[in-house]
Amino acid sequence: METAIKVIKKVKPKKPILVEGLPGIGGVGRITAQYLIDQLKAEKIAELHSPYFLPFTSIQDSVIKLLKNEFYYWKNPKSKGEDLIILVGDCQCGDVSTKGHYDIVEKILDFCENLGVKKIFTLGGFGTGEIEETKDIEILGAASDEKLIEKYEKYGVDFHSSTERIQYIVGASGLLIGLGKERGMEGVCLMGETTGFPILTDPRSAEKLLKVITKILNLDIDLTKIDEKAKEMEAFLKKLEVIQEKAMKKLMPKEEGKENLRYIG
Amino acid sequence: METAIKVIKKVKPKKPILVEGLPGIGGVGRITAQYLIDQLKAEKIAELHSPYFLPFTSIQDSVIKLLKNEFYYWKNPKSKGEDLIILVGDCQCGDVSTKGHYDIVEKILDFCENLGVKKIFTLGGFGTGEIEETKDIEILGAASDEKLIEKYEKYGVDFHSSTERIQYIVGASGLLIGLGKERGMEGVCLMGETTGFPILTDPRSAEKLLKVITKILNLDIDLTKIDEKAKEMEAFLKKLEVIQEKAMKKLMPKEEGKENLRYIG
Amino acid sequence: METAIKVIKKVKPKKPILVEGLPGIGGVGRITAQYLIDQLKAEKIAELHSPYFLPFTSIQDSVIKLLKNEFYYWKNPKSKGEDLIILVGDCQCGDVSTKGHYDIVEKILDFCENLGVKKIFTLGGFGTGEIEETKDIEILGAASDEKLIEKYEKYGVDFHSSTERIQYIVGASGLLIGLGKERGMEGVCLMGETTGFPILTDPRSAEKLLKVITKILNLDIDLTKIDEKAKEMEAFLKKLEVIQEKAMKKLMPKEEGKENLRYIG
Amino acid sequence: METAIKVIKKVKPKKPILVEGLPGIGGVGRITAQYLIDQLKAEKIAELHSPYFLPFTSIQDSVIKLLKNEFYYWKNPKSKGEDLIILVGDCQCGDVSTKGHYDIVEKILDFCENLGVKKIFTLGGFGTGEIEETKDIEILGAASDEKLIEKYEKYGVDFHSSTERIQYIVGASGLLIGLGKERGMEGVCLMGETTGFPILTDPRSAEKLLKVITKILNLDIDLTKIDEKAKEMEAFLKKLEVIQEKAMKKLMPKEEGKENLRYIG
Repeated sequence: METAIKVIKKVKPKKPILVEGLPGIGGVGRITAQYLIDQLKAEKIAELHSPYFLPFTSIQDSVIKLLKNEFYYWKNPKSKGEDLIILVGDCQCGDVSTKGHYDIVEKILDFCENLGVKKIFTLGGFGTGEIEETKDIEILGAASDEKLIEKYEKYGVDFHSSTERIQYIVGASGLLIGLGKERGMEGVCLMGETTGFPILTDPRSAEKLLKVITKILNLDIDLTKIDEKAKEMEAFLKKLEVIQEKAMKKLMPKEEGKENLRYIG
Repeated sequence: METAIKVIKKVKPKKPILVEGLPGIGGVGRITAQYLIDQLKAEKIAELHSPYFLPFTSIQDSVIKLLKNEFYYWKNPKSKGEDLIILVGDCQCGDVSTKGHYDIVEKILDFCENLGVKKIFTLGGFGTGEIEETKDIEILGAASDEKLIEKYEKYGVDFHSSTERIQYIVGASGLLIGLGKERGMEGVCLMGETTGFPILTDPRSAEKLLKVITKILNLDIDLTKIDEKAKEMEAFLKKLEVIQEKAMKKLMPKEEGKENLRYIG
Repeated sequence: METAIKVIKKVKPKKPILVEGLPGIGGVGRITAQYLIDQLKAEKIAELHSPYFLPFTSIQDSVIKLLKNEFYYWKNPKSKGEDLIILVGDCQCGDVSTKGHYDIVEKILDFCENLGVKKIFTLGGFGTGEIEETKDIEILGAASDEKLIEKYEKYGVDFHSSTERIQYIVGASGLLIGLGKERGMEGVCLMGETTGFPILTDPRSAEKLLKVITKILNLDIDLTKIDEKAKEMEAFLKKLEVIQEKAMKKLMPKEEGKENLRYIG
Repeated sequence: METAIKVIKKVKPKKPILVEGLPGIGGVGRITAQYLIDQLKAEKIAELHSPYFLPFTSIQDSVIKLLKNEFYYWKNPKSKGEDLIILVGDCQCGDVSTKGHYDIVEKILDFCENLGVKKIFTLGGFGTGEIEETKDIEILGAASDEKLIEKYEKYGVDFHSSTERIQYIVGASGLLIGLGKERGMEGVCLMGETTGFPILTDPRSAEKLLKVITKILNLDIDLTKIDEKAKEMEAFLKKLEVIQEKAMKKLMPKEEGKENLRYIG
């Protein structure tokens, strides 16, 4: 078995842009990309399966599904507008070997190149390790070429901190840009600040990333629902915090009076 | 060396169904499939070897054997009945890399497709982490298509809990269904509840699974022997429990009077 | 790069037997095979290199050497006698993936098959976890076919305990027999009992294995040197034991009077 | 995707020597090779990318870069002099599987062989685990052939201790020599003594290695800058040492009067 893309519907996009949101830190890229798919009512055009995914199958509504990545297509109603190819999925490469990551990304780029993609935006989260509830969430960026920095920083993307704060991008978000450049594609990676704690997703960071990407792509999208999701998560985290403080007090009664532990995880 | 199937005897099955029982949780699938082979006196028709198996050889009766999977064939005496191809073996893929799992399953499906298989039942155990001795063992199910849920739940298979309780199937039991669907095969995975503790096998769960699968396949099989095996295991576990309670009392004499520790492992 | 054998000298052996002694438990197989090479003055005929070996190079006498396996050839002076191909080396497969083990063994068998090998003896150690200084070292055996048990047990090889005591052979010693059988070769694996402690080699077990293999192959070999090596190791272990007892007494002075700790490691 | 070398500029070197300084212990080889590139103003002629590198991309000045190795070319102004091909890079093979190491080295050797390389110098660090500030840093050596020992030891390289003190070289520094020999290339591995502590680089050891390699290659290079770097590192280590002593005193006040802990890490 090889990594392969199964075409479900043939399309002829005009000036298509790839927007990638595979699973990663805080689920930020994934939530952002899936939200675009839902709001734009993009249609599924292809599936990618790979022997480099973990050998699991998922059960959804009692039906067994192979792990997959999915390509969605949105046709821009504006005649001069750019169409979108949105990539989401269950997972990235799960193999311990490194070859799988490169193999999957090359197959994604083959597919996109055939559709005429020349621009790539990859979306992800950047784990800071901290929660500061009052802080404004920053969107950091890195690009395939320095010309793109000037072009996109006016959308509120901080390109200048990424070298020092991020240094390395792990996985598809970086490889799609790096390998895409070898094919003459220009690419920008946008990362929303998030705590980086495992398991918890970050809809608030996704909301901020959505504000930026919709401005860049000139999309008119209702952000009400993502704001609701973010509020739900914040309420859930507050409950966790209360439970944790009570538990801490039981374990260490002598600690009363000390600074309130306001962190989660 | 490649994963390869060595044909020992050529057969031309009619409407063959694949029943898979490779090693897995609690040995439930393995015991079930082997029991069918023994009771039906199925004959061995092929062996699968793979460089993705661990690099061990087993010693049986002083003879060295490569690790293998084995295919058995049972010819249904009823003229309109479905023949069976039963798959058992020493192991699944042992390689740390993920490709081996997919490679082995594809080779199994190639072999089955050539024999005309269009239906697959995979058998396994679902580890709950608990022993409740009075509880009736449930058989959970998941399928390649939702149409099959209605078709098979009347045999006492609980399809509706599997999404929430199981979520992911690891290995061949799920991949055979997922990859089999790509070849137009319909498949159902049946999992018997079991504790999931390592090393211990669960003949009682296998007995329950046998009751269900023999009904589905319309087989008339004597379940006396499996009941005996289950009783032997239950007696063995009771002895272990007694030994463990005595040991616990020695280690923690102050704990006397506390709730009797009724668990194993 | 592929696993490949570099032929240094072409030979046309008569009825050649492969004797394998690659690194393994206690170095027993390795010491035995190397001793045969030295005593018989066998000549080197080929080298095997593999990308499945660890990516190390060794430094010997200031010269850098790739990791290798080596084939030696001994021409039997008796006209009806069997020649020997003796296999030793730096290592077995070092790759985490399983494919490397099978690939290397298949390449070894290709080479041997081309030379006309039809019989294989693999040599190794079986770790018992114990030292009993007064006990006679047993040589356990397992074979490619049950007919060989009767043929070889008269040489003092215990075939009947191996199923229960050993169960699985890891690596080339077993795979050469298992995969060799697929090519119509008959094979016997001989394992000398040894403690199995890491790092320490066991020349006494190798001496016992030499006594058996030289009888089987009808070789007249002087075992004086291996007896000397075994005595050196025994003296070294006695020193270690004394040092360890003194250290134990310092750490646990209250333990005086207790049973003397007569074990190493 | 395969390991591949992208040629940026075609050159026709005369009697080129490969000098390798990929990342390794103490960064000694890397610092040495990069210093040669900078001082000689060597020009970049090729890049190597590989799916055996870790699936990361680096961010430099906000631009995303694939992990790479780089080849630089220096044309010797002396008509009878040897040109240099200097190899540096972000990383060696990052794959858990061993094949990647061999694959990358073979691709490097293919490229060098095509350019006419017949001599290789690989540069690295040898971790001793100790800091002795007054000790003179030794350069140890190992070669593809014993003839080279006599040829190069007059440059102050200690070949005779390497067998005992080093025993095994891990990675490209050794494999380039070992696999290069198979192609008729002669090679020497030069290793500067260094502490071997993780993260810290050792410009002082690189300075010593530079003194030796520039003599061997008959290069006239200004070592002022590397001396400055070494002094910066020594000042930094002294600060770390002071901080560590103060911290130790706080943690173990009873330890005052004991020997000053003069080590870092």
